[in-house]
Amino acid sequence: MANPCWIWYPGDMELYYALLQNMSRVERGCGWPAFWKSEGFRNRVVFRKEYDLAAPASFTVYSRAVGYVLAGEKKYPFGRLITVPEGPVRISVHAMRIDAFPAVFVDGDVIFSDRTWSVSDYDRTYDYAGTSRYFTDKTRDVASWPYSESLFEPVRVTPAEVSVPAAEAEDIQGNKAPFTRSGETLKAEGFLYEFETELTAQLSLKAADGTDLPAETLKTITAYLGESVSEALDPVHCYYSFTPDESGRTPRAALAAVFIPGPRLTVTAVHQYVDIPVRASFSSDDPLLQRIWDVSAHTFKLASGIFFIDGVKRDKWIWSGDAYQSIQLNSCFFRDPDIDRRTLIALRGNDPVTTHINTIADYSMLWLIGVMEHTAIYSDVEFLRDMYPKMKTMAEFLMKQTDEDGFFTGRPGDWIYIDWADMDKTGSFGAEQMLYALTMRKMSEAASLLDIREDAAFYETVWDSLREKINRFYWDEEKQAYIDSFRSGRRFVSRQTNIFALRSGVAEGDRRSAVIRNVLLNPEVPPITTPYFTFYELDELGKAGFTDILRERMTAYWGGMLERGATTFWEEYDPTVTGEAQYDMYGDRFGKSLCHAWAASPLYLISRYLT
Amino acid sequence: MANPCWIWYPGDMELYYALLQNMSRVERGCGWPAFWKSEGFRNRVVFRKEYDLAAPASFTVYSRAVGYVLAGEKKYPFGRLITVPEGPVRISVHAMRIDAFPAVFVDGDVIFSDRTWSVSDYDRTYDYAGTSRYFTDKTRDVASWPYSESLFEPVRVTPAEVSVPAAEAEDIQGNKAPFTRSGETLKAEGFLYEFETELTAQLSLKAADGTDLPAETLKTITAYLGESVSEALDPVHCYYSFTPDESGRTPRAALAAVFIPGPRLTVTAVHQYVDIPVRASFSSDDPLLQRIWDVSAHTFKLASGIFFIDGVKRDKWIWSGDAYQSIQLNSCFFRDPDIDRRTLIALRGNDPVTTHINTIADYSMLWLIGVMEHTAIYSDVEFLRDMYPKMKTMAEFLMKQTDEDGFFTGRPGDWIYIDWADMDKTGSFGAEQMLYALTMRKMSEAASLLDIREDAAFYETVWDSLREKINRFYWDEEKQAYIDSFRSGRRFVSRQTNIFALRSGVAEGDRRSAVIRNVLLNPEVPPITTPYFTFYELDELGKAGFTDILRERMTAYWGGMLERGATTFWEEYDPTVTGEAQYDMYGDRFGKSLCHAWAASPLYLISRYLT
Repeated sequence: MANPCWIWYPGDMELYYALLQNMSRVERGCGWPAFWKSEGFRNRVVFRKEYDLAAPASFTVYSRAVGYVLAGEKKYPFGRLITVPEGPVRISVHAMRIDAFPAVFVDGDVIFSDRTWSVSDYDRTYDYAGTSRYFTDKTRDVASWPYSESLFEPVRVTPAEVSVPAAEAEDIQGNKAPFTRSGETLKAEGFLYEFETELTAQLSLKAADGTDLPAETLKTITAYLGESVSEALDPVHCYYSFTPDESGRTPRAALAAVFIPGPRLTVTAVHQYVDIPVRASFSSDDPLLQRIWDVSAHTFKLASGIFFIDGVKRDKWIWSGDAYQSIQLNSCFFRDPDIDRRTLIALRGNDPVTTHINTIADYSMLWLIGVMEHTAIYSDVEFLRDMYPKMKTMAEFLMKQTDEDGFFTGRPGDWIYIDWADMDKTGSFGAEQMLYALTMRKMSEAASLLDIREDAAFYETVWDSLREKINRFYWDEEKQAYIDSFRSGRRFVSRQTNIFALRSGVAEGDRRSAVIRNVLLNPEVPPITTPYFTFYELDELGKAGFTDILRERMTAYWGGMLERGATTFWEEYDPTVTGEAQYDMYGDRFGKSLCHAWAASPLYLISRYLT
Repeated sequence: MANPCWIWYPGDMELYYALLQNMSRVERGCGWPAFWKSEGFRNRVVFRKEYDLAAPASFTVYSRAVGYVLAGEKKYPFGRLITVPEGPVRISVHAMRIDAFPAVFVDGDVIFSDRTWSVSDYDRTYDYAGTSRYFTDKTRDVASWPYSESLFEPVRVTPAEVSVPAAEAEDIQGNKAPFTRSGETLKAEGFLYEFETELTAQLSLKAADGTDLPAETLKTITAYLGESVSEALDPVHCYYSFTPDESGRTPRAALAAVFIPGPRLTVTAVHQYVDIPVRASFSSDDPLLQRIWDVSAHTFKLASGIFFIDGVKRDKWIWSGDAYQSIQLNSCFFRDPDIDRRTLIALRGNDPVTTHINTIADYSMLWLIGVMEHTAIYSDVEFLRDMYPKMKTMAEFLMKQTDEDGFFTGRPGDWIYIDWADMDKTGSFGAEQMLYALTMRKMSEAASLLDIREDAAFYETVWDSLREKINRFYWDEEKQAYIDSFRSGRRFVSRQTNIFALRSGVAEGDRRSAVIRNVLLNPEVPPITTPYFTFYELDELGKAGFTDILRERMTAYWGGMLERGATTFWEEYDPTVTGEAQYDMYGDRFGKSLCHAWAASPLYLISRYLT
């Protein structure tokens, strides 16, 4: 049966939507596109398929691109019914588009577009086309994503008044009309609308009686959005403020609450999401564990859209380290290989590699390691085969950035991140070497799987040599742990370097137990403060069988956020910080993301170690 | 005085408009985008400039991109007046755009955008921004070119009737309503509107009395355009047919005549062009020479827009070989370095080089040679410095495509063009070797000019070695000429190979005069039939002092087209072909371009040799 769908050059859809995703961040009226080199889709491609028809066949090609159909020797425009006689025929569809990726939809009973078409960009030809289960409607433009929608009413509406020092008047975003001056203060009265939890939604605004608001009224309205009530009630510092369009809708954005000056309105949140079925369920007698699972699940769902993004308010960007963890969460929640693939394709962009992914050296490595994790989870050798050339150019890019000892340093100015923590990155940083070695190990495994023996042997040699050298240079006999830097003389021991020594396999035998005892279970080593690295730490404790400690630490850490009223989990959590300060990050009030994918890792930890 | 203009990442404007240019060809309702790999502009860039202000300064940034302004430590949205205090300050403008290249306009008395801003794509940083004298209006979107316009009225309007065999009914483009059936024939009556010469114009259609036509009427109109009257009167085979938009305008397209079924209308051609001042003038007592100059000038002006294109009806594409000649015509007509630069940037696209320019190996070479010709004409070392890295990657790309003797073969499937003519391309084709050698020679000259001594020495060695080998393998002692192939055994002598032997400098001393005598002046060697190669041949005759022969051949060839009624010069001209057949090319009725840049070379030949 004919099951036609839109087709494109493999990867183009991902690269186009990655551009949109990475430019979707808005902060107080400023668009804030991601600060790394952004790679585009192709503009000119050709699709081909050969048929040997038992009878004449008719079809129509739909496209928003500029181009034509070549059926046999004859050219036809898009949108016209084409009939070809029985016998062998080659159909070619030429398409060029600038504002979005060229895509075509071939509609017919026998001749129709699907993954079996080949596609070329005049450089590389694939023997299959890019497709997605979300693009099967011939009437839609592929340039806009077909989100699923569900409606949410506020769970609480309360009168509210906000005041702003008059000196900050010019920093109030949007329409200032509802603000009135009273001495040195500007005030606005209105209503606060709170939703059950955070959403990624358009707001639909109507009059209190449910009727449409006149266009003139809509123009005077400003909605101040918040991930928290505090944020919604701060018109100077909240991230998003919008005036609705003529239909009464505001742009799609993260929100848990909204303050709207003026009379009470009927406010509905139209939550827009990518429908990915959940395969996991969890029920526990322990209400705290259950709540941690549920809130993790909601957090992860919000941060899993077209791509795995870091946070839904901020950055709304596709970060490789965050995605690497999301791939693992996905494996025990949605178990959806498509979002992995979309994200990995988007992150890597096009060859040549000239900068690190997200400008972070360890994120380049985690991308490559992530491809292999994905491959292992879904036995997705076909995807690995597609990615391998780009993994290899990435590996070659990395190998050019080593010092005279063969340790990875990055290029001057490259960002060696690993974690938000105090670490000693002098010279070649220990944690980075562990990841670098793991990257080489994964290259060897990838080449083996694809039976590229020469590469497999080469990268295995690199991995062996790195493992030996790291153990020689970074192991501190006295401390019985790996140090961050052997050049600084500080002999600083961080959890991060030792956790990655375990994760990478660089630590073997007795050194594994020594590291766990002397670092991971040692309260004198400064604790991890990000959910990001807590995932890695607890994963190692789980693997080593310390599931009681894992559970205790997990419930303390995530339970702590719940005690503060979290309905989604946060980018960072420090139990010692309270009040308004807990929303602050990067020196920015409300700068902290309150719905961050890397905080959803209990999904993985519970699935893997506590069930 | 402040003289602000739009700024962008150098090359982005050219790459964006090259995409538009190369997808602008339309053929009988089918969009026909160019069939080579198409390279895009950047999507995400940042502009920066540092000031040390003597007094507070205010400015506003305009952009259709998504982004923000960072003035000192503070972020501002686009469109807002920003005031910064006196003292040192760094202004950064971050911009991202998908549908066109990101560009910004900084409007202020002291802080304003111009070429002195630096710009980065997060990979390479330039210490100057891209600008153009055509983009100085802050209210315009840089995504649409600000064409100059002039109006043309028809010089002749005559009633006309066309008929089409009923069997071809479905091939009549556009609205068929005005066609009525009469037996086995479909007929339409209307009017033929002829213009003085070919234009690139929108048509503005009004009622006979000059009033606007109702939208309902406009929808029923189809205009059939032609470069010739024959084409306009052939609704099945003419290239362009349009229904006007609601304002009565048709899309910008090449036309010399238009047939519109139905009652007589007021038809105005709105010629849209890029205003490039002409620096040359020519007046002669010889009316034929004068006419050849004038028609060449009109032809060249039509084909010189944002870029040098091949032809204005077809292909409307940027071809490297054609552009190479246009650079030389330009030097003695507009003498405008900007159009050279725009064209050379557009042709080359982005690194890495993975395919030949326009898919043609010799066009890759002519691009590189063209950069050096441009440099020589305008002493434009700054442009050369910009291009040199891309010249070098191109040279390296070419050098990988040689055989065991070091002769250039291209890769399997690469197009070795040189000319539309019968030549012996077996193995490594002689004419191609001449160009390849010249490419290496030009690389050496470029490196010398930029004082990159190692490269200069290297490429000189390659050039010396190639020159020696070509003379050894391709020179035929008996014929006293260069042969096309030493592998086929045919010892075929073409004008093309010998002309390029002269042009490249591979032929020296006695061999130069032998080649001129035995090939160029030898009527037994098959003549050139394209204006393209006629340029190269006459240029060599001119350089060798045979200006009488040059003049004689030039006036015969171009005078021949004038005798056929040409008001612009043609893509190809064969004096033995007459009637309707003279419009045929590539087996396509009206397939021949009647206004083709490479036919305008009398501008150069007259300037250089006959004045």
